[in-house]
Amino acid sequence: MSSKTLASSSLISDLTNVVGDQYVVWKPEDLLVYEYDGSIDKAPPQAVVLPSSAEEVSQIVKIANRHGAYIVARGAGTSLSGGAVPLRNSVVIALTRLTNLIEVDAVNRVAIVEPGMINLHLSQKVSHLGLFYAPDPASQKTCTIGGNIGENAGGPHCLALGVTTNHVLGLEVVLADGSLTWFGGTQRESSGYDLRGAFVGSEGTLGIVTKIAVRLLPKPETIHSMLAAFTTMDAASDTVSEIIAAGMVPSALEMMDRNTIDAVEPFYHPGYPAEAQAVLIVEVDGLKESVEEQTETVLDICNRNGAMEIREADDEETRDKLWQTRKGAIGAYGTIAPTYYLVDGVVPRTKLREVLQQVDQIAVELDVTVANVFHAGDGNIHPAILFNERNPEEVKQAILAGAKILEACVAAGGALSGEHGIGIEKQAYMPLVFNEDDLEAMSRLRTAFIGESPEDAPIGVPSLGERFNPGKVFPGGAVHGEAYGITAESFRPTGTQDWQ
Amino acid sequence: MSSKTLASSSLISDLTNVVGDQYVVWKPEDLLVYEYDGSIDKAPPQAVVLPSSAEEVSQIVKIANRHGAYIVARGAGTSLSGGAVPLRNSVVIALTRLTNLIEVDAVNRVAIVEPGMINLHLSQKVSHLGLFYAPDPASQKTCTIGGNIGENAGGPHCLALGVTTNHVLGLEVVLADGSLTWFGGTQRESSGYDLRGAFVGSEGTLGIVTKIAVRLLPKPETIHSMLAAFTTMDAASDTVSEIIAAGMVPSALEMMDRNTIDAVEPFYHPGYPAEAQAVLIVEVDGLKESVEEQTETVLDICNRNGAMEIREADDEETRDKLWQTRKGAIGAYGTIAPTYYLVDGVVPRTKLREVLQQVDQIAVELDVTVANVFHAGDGNIHPAILFNERNPEEVKQAILAGAKILEACVAAGGALSGEHGIGIEKQAYMPLVFNEDDLEAMSRLRTAFIGESPEDAPIGVPSLGERFNPGKVFPGGAVHGEAYGITAESFRPTGTQDWQ
Repeated sequence: MSSKTLASSSLISDLTNVVGDQYVVWKPEDLLVYEYDGSIDKAPPQAVVLPSSAEEVSQIVKIANRHGAYIVARGAGTSLSGGAVPLRNSVVIALTRLTNLIEVDAVNRVAIVEPGMINLHLSQKVSHLGLFYAPDPASQKTCTIGGNIGENAGGPHCLALGVTTNHVLGLEVVLADGSLTWFGGTQRESSGYDLRGAFVGSEGTLGIVTKIAVRLLPKPETIHSMLAAFTTMDAASDTVSEIIAAGMVPSALEMMDRNTIDAVEPFYHPGYPAEAQAVLIVEVDGLKESVEEQTETVLDICNRNGAMEIREADDEETRDKLWQTRKGAIGAYGTIAPTYYLVDGVVPRTKLREVLQQVDQIAVELDVTVANVFHAGDGNIHPAILFNERNPEEVKQAILAGAKILEACVAAGGALSGEHGIGIEKQAYMPLVFNEDDLEAMSRLRTAFIGESPEDAPIGVPSLGERFNPGKVFPGGAVHGEAYGITAESFRPTGTQDWQ
Repeated sequence: MSSKTLASSSLISDLTNVVGDQYVVWKPEDLLVYEYDGSIDKAPPQAVVLPSSAEEVSQIVKIANRHGAYIVARGAGTSLSGGAVPLRNSVVIALTRLTNLIEVDAVNRVAIVEPGMINLHLSQKVSHLGLFYAPDPASQKTCTIGGNIGENAGGPHCLALGVTTNHVLGLEVVLADGSLTWFGGTQRESSGYDLRGAFVGSEGTLGIVTKIAVRLLPKPETIHSMLAAFTTMDAASDTVSEIIAAGMVPSALEMMDRNTIDAVEPFYHPGYPAEAQAVLIVEVDGLKESVEEQTETVLDICNRNGAMEIREADDEETRDKLWQTRKGAIGAYGTIAPTYYLVDGVVPRTKLREVLQQVDQIAVELDVTVANVFHAGDGNIHPAILFNERNPEEVKQAILAGAKILEACVAAGGALSGEHGIGIEKQAYMPLVFNEDDLEAMSRLRTAFIGESPEDAPIGVPSLGERFNPGKVFPGGAVHGEAYGITAESFRPTGTQDWQ
């Protein structure tokens, strides 16, 4: 994973002909920043190219084909599962220059954007029309909408509004042969197979998205945010269950544990009660009267479960402050340990309390520190395993703890990923939820888009079937933690069938 | 399309071994009812088999493979685009015995059902838990959830809640080789490619769905329905635009025109004003206070646009009566003409008024009667062209009018289908919205699931690529109206590229 091969001068010159000198990166020292993303894995690209249009992306794919090079599309590089790490010495196509808002149709509530647009910028640009773009990953100030498509990103407000795929109407994509095509449309409905749906969440393995038609939503008339502190995680978990059982779907329902409180206190000084073991954020929105009624219900339930302190926010400034600790939590983990590994699993809401207790046990057994901050409302947990990457034993324990937590989620009837994708991180766990038939059906879909018969492959490329983002998603493509000396033999999730 | 070949006795005997004598239909007179669905097309199957389990479906597919027979899955046969018409002398697998509610998880709001369950039955079965299943096609008392998956069915309440694909979490399917696999899960999120999404709306061409995990929603606390009559269609259209522009998303927003009023009067005697040219149904739901506020806004807008009469309903009985004319409209067209062809197109909401005027012009030009009843809120129009199927000239004019209406929808930036699918009816129009690259990408997806290389095909079958529901969706598969003497040369949509 760490061997470096630099691009040939003929490849560099072909790429330069398309985008110009200043948009091809090939010197080893300049390539360093493209080895990483937000995960713990890394690998060096042979070159990075920054196109300015869909047509340039199409030309670059054709050039890479001729040179037998793999391709990895990259947005802001915030992936938490290794999605943007360029395995197999790929050519990275960085889409950060494609940031245009191409069209806004306010009446029909549709926008067409380029993939390099930063998530939050879209909502800012349409705010004066009374509209917003719903998916709001914690990294929304940095991450790109193209990257969100790749990973089918979620966010705190996806509880009520759905994840990225629910807001994408159509996609322009560059396919393996460099051709440009359009899937879906700008209407809610379109005809033919739902290839739009298959692309969203395909983690860059089927093609490169170059334009995106998204649905915009009208901003709610009223938003009311509440923050409640509890003396136990169980009390907070019960509060979550009761809110949902009351038939409400709050626009957000987020939880932080004591370790997370410890991490955010020195940063943001929120002054949460010293005995608080959990903090819950609940947000309701809609028409004024409806919000008032829902607020009353939420406060009742919090109080009944022994909330020690409740804070409320009605206006944007107070709300931003109330959300600050939640949105900044992951960054604040740096106060506790040099590195974190943010696990991402989903459990049925009814199993939340039980799985959180298991996460605690796993932390104790393996002697790792785990901090919890997560989307409680839809059972999407995010245990952050905190460790020091310079201590190989700590790294191994962290990865092992991650595996055990994901196993616990699956055993509880949950899923491997809520919103971070499979990437490098979770591919070894795919057999926990998919049997060979399932994986083969997925592989057939990839083959349908990419082709894979050996006679199709240009010289020097073992299989065209991995043309885009090679080594990701499917088991056996790469080893999670290899950069830290982990090998495929170091461990494997228990309970899996025979696989590599 | 109309040549009849009966099944061989060895095929019948193989099928009988799986399901028993009484569940294999092969006598010509018994097969007659399986030639039709809700569209104007028809074709005879060679046999019909009614399995009682997913395992039996799997065995039947393997038997059909051995005998080189095509396969068409059938639910209630209510398809309006010819989805259930068995072209190529297919073996029909009727799923009407698979009606079980396998599991309900009320807390996590998930149900697992068999494909033959009637849509409305699911909501009835979970009603005591305070839950319901959202997609509600007009045919919901008859149509099956399996058929809804095939066509990605919508309904009046899909404006606020989304169509079938938004409510399906996972699918068990029988693939082309007869193997059983599962796509998606019971969580909102799952890992890997979204093959669940690709299956929903694939019109039976990729496999046969045998189990379905669906999301259930909590029933709203309050529902308020309003019906308003207007002197012009324009006034009703403006009312729709203003309601949406006010930032509301009513749970339903439906329109009927004068011809539809004429059709429903003798059936249901609603006593709408004699001068009414349009009737609008608006429904809002949610918490009591929010419903009151929305009701006030809707009534204001209706009055401002000159509503002649407004009726309201708060309880279930009054609401059912208010909805009766809308839900029974299509059936009532029988009072005006022997046959109807229900067109299904989508236009941007802003173009609704303009496209409705074009529909009027097309009706005048081609001398056909068109009645309109449709989902105004999301721009999904359903002009019903009324004709006498015994008059070949009328049939031709009806089909031509349908083509022109669909062209007008596409020209206005809309889509070919809102909820009825492509089937036989619209395949010739696919090139209006898809270029060759798009169609090829779709064809690759089908190939990924079915296989198509000639050496894979059993003797007597030209291409495995059409194993399931042959001749549907893709251009050139069949001729819409062939049963009435229409040929591929009779007409073709103007403005299309060269295609067959």
